Amino acid sequence: MSCDCDRQGRVDGDIDQQEMVPNMKSIVLVDGVVLNGPTTDAKAGEKFVEEAYKLIMEEVVLKATDINEKVCEWQPPEQLKQLLDLEMRDTGEPCDRLLKLCQDVIRFSVKTNHPRFFNQLYAGLDYYSLAARFMTEALNPSVYTYEVSPVFLLVEEAVLKKMIEFIGWKEGDGIFNPGGSVSNMYAMNLARYKYCPDIKEKGLFGLPRLILFTSAECHYSMKKAASFLGIGTQNVCFVETDGRGKMIPEELEKQIWQARKEGTTPFLVCATSGTTVLGAFDPLDEIADICERHGLWLHVDASWGGSALMSRKHRRLLHGIHRADSVAWNPHKMLMAGIQCCALLVKDKSDLLKKCYSAKASYLFQQDKFYDVSYDTGDKSIQCSRRPDAFKFWMTWKALGTLGLEERVNRALALSRYLVEEIKKREGFKLLMEPEYANICFWYIPPSLRKMEEGPEFWEKLNLVAPAIKERMMKKGSLMLGYQTHRGKVNFFRQVVISPQVSREDMDFLLDEIDLLGRDM
Amino acid sequence: MSCDCDRQGRVDGDIDQQEMVPNMKSIVLVDGVVLNGPTTDAKAGEKFVEEAYKLIMEEVVLKATDINEKVCEWQPPEQLKQLLDLEMRDTGEPCDRLLKLCQDVIRFSVKTNHPRFFNQLYAGLDYYSLAARFMTEALNPSVYTYEVSPVFLLVEEAVLKKMIEFIGWKEGDGIFNPGGSVSNMYAMNLARYKYCPDIKEKGLFGLPRLILFTSAECHYSMKKAASFLGIGTQNVCFVETDGRGKMIPEELEKQIWQARKEGTTPFLVCATSGTTVLGAFDPLDEIADICERHGLWLHVDASWGGSALMSRKHRRLLHGIHRADSVAWNPHKMLMAGIQCCALLVKDKSDLLKKCYSAKASYLFQQDKFYDVSYDTGDKSIQCSRRPDAFKFWMTWKALGTLGLEERVNRALALSRYLVEEIKKREGFKLLMEPEYANICFWYIPPSLRKMEEGPEFWEKLNLVAPAIKERMMKKGSLMLGYQTHRGKVNFFRQVVISPQVSREDMDFLLDEIDLLGRDM
Repeated sequence: MSCDCDRQGRVDGDIDQQEMVPNMKSIVLVDGVVLNGPTTDAKAGEKFVEEAYKLIMEEVVLKATDINEKVCEWQPPEQLKQLLDLEMRDTGEPCDRLLKLCQDVIRFSVKTNHPRFFNQLYAGLDYYSLAARFMTEALNPSVYTYEVSPVFLLVEEAVLKKMIEFIGWKEGDGIFNPGGSVSNMYAMNLARYKYCPDIKEKGLFGLPRLILFTSAECHYSMKKAASFLGIGTQNVCFVETDGRGKMIPEELEKQIWQARKEGTTPFLVCATSGTTVLGAFDPLDEIADICERHGLWLHVDASWGGSALMSRKHRRLLHGIHRADSVAWNPHKMLMAGIQCCALLVKDKSDLLKKCYSAKASYLFQQDKFYDVSYDTGDKSIQCSRRPDAFKFWMTWKALGTLGLEERVNRALALSRYLVEEIKKREGFKLLMEPEYANICFWYIPPSLRKMEEGPEFWEKLNLVAPAIKERMMKKGSLMLGYQTHRGKVNFFRQVVISPQVSREDMDFLLDEIDLLGRDM
Repeated sequence: MSCDCDRQGRVDGDIDQQEMVPNMKSIVLVDGVVLNGPTTDAKAGEKFVEEAYKLIMEEVVLKATDINEKVCEWQPPEQLKQLLDLEMRDTGEPCDRLLKLCQDVIRFSVKTNHPRFFNQLYAGLDYYSLAARFMTEALNPSVYTYEVSPVFLLVEEAVLKKMIEFIGWKEGDGIFNPGGSVSNMYAMNLARYKYCPDIKEKGLFGLPRLILFTSAECHYSMKKAASFLGIGTQNVCFVETDGRGKMIPEELEKQIWQARKEGTTPFLVCATSGTTVLGAFDPLDEIADICERHGLWLHVDASWGGSALMSRKHRRLLHGIHRADSVAWNPHKMLMAGIQCCALLVKDKSDLLKKCYSAKASYLFQQDKFYDVSYDTGDKSIQCSRRPDAFKFWMTWKALGTLGLEERVNRALALSRYLVEEIKKREGFKLLMEPEYANICFWYIPPSLRKMEEGPEFWEKLNLVAPAIKERMMKKGSLMLGYQTHRGKVNFFRQVVISPQVSREDMDFLLDEIDLLGRDM
């Protein structure tokens, strides 16, 4: 690479530092590239951001509460590819083309903040979190060292401390992760490290089989974690649940004894507070007793149910959680912090997270910095760059206060209760079971099946109903909710209530609409 | 939980569905909670977003190119805690207090898009990516199923396909991850799965020690990955590098033979394209020969250097990359897509990613959906919720075109070249070595040391210079760049050039400013 700088300009010293077209005499050329002034057209860029922002406000934010809008504008994959101009070309597109693209992206995207989006364990729009997210996108921080992310590190510390308080621990540690699945992995690895710190350096080779226990209704990330961490899915023991989806403590203890008898090494129990499908809460107190007796790490996957801790009325669902060694809790679900906002909280205060995860990169975590480097918390993470996910939740918490967050949880659960009572009253609707939380699982039985005996043919036919109604609702765009089979039960709907933009009118609509879509079946 | 709905209102049917204060007669109460209408004050929320947006545009976006602004407003941790009102209280804060908070957050945050922020491997502001990020924050999607994220899944597919083209593969697969560290983990796990698919179910127990090879200058995530995946840091063999930081192929082969002799099982070689400190590129073609001879998976960590593939002039740095089995490449670094935007690309087309990672959650990846479920790609991931990180990069690519992206890379490398030549000319500045890429490593030798012999005392004193100047520049807020020791070399500065908002005037300023800050030392 040769350098052929024309240095005259510099000597002249007559360059306006920010001018876009430098004086010809003063041009500095290297490898054929002009190096004077920035090359970005900031004015055009800012204008584009302004235009896109207007579009976002009009087409997404202002419509977030409008039930007259469609939840989705369904197009099958191949057609949607035709409709969108996805190709990246050699030359850039003009601004108006880009804005048209933005419009299309919004149009064909599912409106997850629509009052009638009930498809996942997140929904709705929190304005304060959204403003915070715009801020962090513009500031573009990475949360690893205090020198680069002073504010966001302190905010994370404050939020973790407060969440720890709600768990009921006097102190603790924690970290925000890209997802509850990743938090569960962290916990599994921490428990393993606590059991045998040598694993960090030596790996699992030559060790007896490590075994962990979780309920048969746990999140699928447990299997992903076991396989990713080299433990293997076969070494996850799934403990039987009762009719409501809760882990049976006696079964857990039986399996621990059995594993010991077989010469394997139990090291961890993962309880679930709020299972994904049924919204069931494992009996934490009884499970904690067993963990104590057997010297096992207790992790609670409260990714979904953790937010009930904000409600004095409903926190009893997690009774005993203070006895856990670690907890995964995702404020992006019921507390609407925006995807993703997921904390792993750890009771230990001996710096276990750091000991387990640190790699001491000398280019990032220098020990001779001029400030207190204990604030450089990035080495507790498996990530290097990390997003400031605590911040958006902090902003919402500041805006609503603890009482406002509590009110949201209470309202979601009251709406769930209302829906349950409606389902009981309506012909053609049948609850799977009384829910504990905001997952309401039910079948819609269309007129043609209502008189049929509940034998194999009935179930076979009923199994086709939810997928068929789901197709109709998505093509119409009126509503989105999930369905699934579950442990021998044929396809049923799972309604999840979260957002304060939702009212009992939306609950009524949900049932009316399902009936409307399915009454000819 | 008892339900004490007042059902009269519903029978009356006189409720305005969206009114905030329902007719008293029609109130529906459950558990003491009024369920009529949404409880969110949308108007107030929208207004807050508007106000926050104005602040963001004024204080972050418009100032992103303004060199008269400070890069950072330094406060030590304890003082900053006093200055910020971090506490989350029972009741919410009024809007003006929240806006004041936003202002403080911006004020005390490091301006990573300032033209004189050179501290990390990312910098600058891409307006198109920013607009796309605002969109995705408002739409709040999670990229796992086509039904919830139709557009973002198709965009991810299109971007991966294009990146695969630039690697030089005819076809392939891939996924966007929360960080290059996580991508490296994916690759390590994939290589292990390819070597022995049973590990997914059985774990590593009873297996011979698996060994992987990487350069002594690799990213620290290799150690984190090995420990997280249960392989253990001791089973990472660090291959010696030459004077420029490149892996020595002969040393690699020697170590593979040695490992075999010791009865361990090599399964993976991780080459680095663009090391973190020196910006060195391992000789991929020679390494690929060795991997072929030994039947080892070749992963290339091109998190930092991958963007050179966009430049016809500089892609030779990665000569041989098409022979890799997997590649990590982060467009959030030199291509400024915003943190995070990190792809893992895989040459295999036999659905290896899915086979290795799938857990087949029946509530999410139903097989009886009405559309082609091969578009539900979420089961390729270790995450459940996943952000649409490909989209922001796609928007930039659309706006600039391939040629615009190429120009950025060329300019960053031309600016680096300019800086190198300036360093050579200036008294008191000393290059560590000729750089290959955008990392320029150099010492500043203050006047008091210029006449001293380069013995132990000299190096001991020089070691203190960079940290001291870093402290001064941060307290002044004029500039941010990194420093570190490295493999026996005392603290030196590492300048990283990325952003097109940067010009050769900023390069001159950098050297002038360091001299100004250090000339009394």
